[in-house]
Amino acid sequence: MSQDCIFCKIVKGEIPSQKIYENKDFFAFLDIKPINKGHALIVPKVHCENILDFPKAEETDFIETIKVVAKALVKATGADGFNVGMNNGEAAGQVVLHAHMHIIPRFKGDGLHTWPHKEFSKEEMDELHRKVLNELIKE
Amino acid sequence: MSQDCIFCKIVKGEIPSQKIYENKDFFAFLDIKPINKGHALIVPKVHCENILDFPKAEETDFIETIKVVAKALVKATGADGFNVGMNNGEAAGQVVLHAHMHIIPRFKGDGLHTWPHKEFSKEEMDELHRKVLNELIKE
Repeated sequence: MSQDCIFCKIVKGEIPSQKIYENKDFFAFLDIKPINKGHALIVPKVHCENILDFPKAEETDFIETIKVVAKALVKATGADGFNVGMNNGEAAGQVVLHAHMHIIPRFKGDGLHTWPHKEFSKEEMDELHRKVLNELIKE
Repeated sequence: MSQDCIFCKIVKGEIPSQKIYENKDFFAFLDIKPINKGHALIVPKVHCENILDFPKAEETDFIETIKVVAKALVKATGADGFNVGMNNGEAAGQVVLHAHMHIIPRFKGDGLHTWPHKEFSKEEMDELHRKVLNELIKE
């Protein structure tokens, strides 16, 4: 547990939450600032900061937990679909630095729109492509 | 392979893409309609529609692949963070019905904002909480 991490405290029950599910390694609760009805978070019980330091041994169970929780949220809310997403780093909108998966039920015509596309020239895309390939070759 | 699925065709090389990475079960390429510089997609090679029918045997490798690709995208673009997300169902913004993980590099002050929060009363939240718990008890 990280000393001042509010999600570690929620997992331990030191801060109350609307808990919806728990298994060996994961804990799920309703987001207190929901983007849509049924917006929930799934967190690993062991503190890690983001997806890059997520424990490999828990990864299958993480996705299996997402499936269980997402199905229940869809049924409970009558949703037509759902988004799952993790913000990694403050620049990506991560507020609590304890890895968490957002599950956001979606409804036809709910007014939420994906971010607009940006335009890049063919040259910019080709240069970027080369740079990414270079990084992956180093792996 | 699903006959008319464009991501199946991209995986097979029948439709060109700016491929950045490939391993046994996954294929990654730059999104042709990027939300931000370096926006890429990771798709399972075997056709499945969304996270709910994602093959369990590939889940650990899926997250490991996300880690590899995300690190490379961050280095190549100089990003300060990144979002990962899957849209499940057309109501959630899923356009191609072949499961895919978006990896979106983020930059301080890039002007992308998370969706606004909605207000629900305590009674609404409590009722929702009960409904979700009811669904999870049925599991």
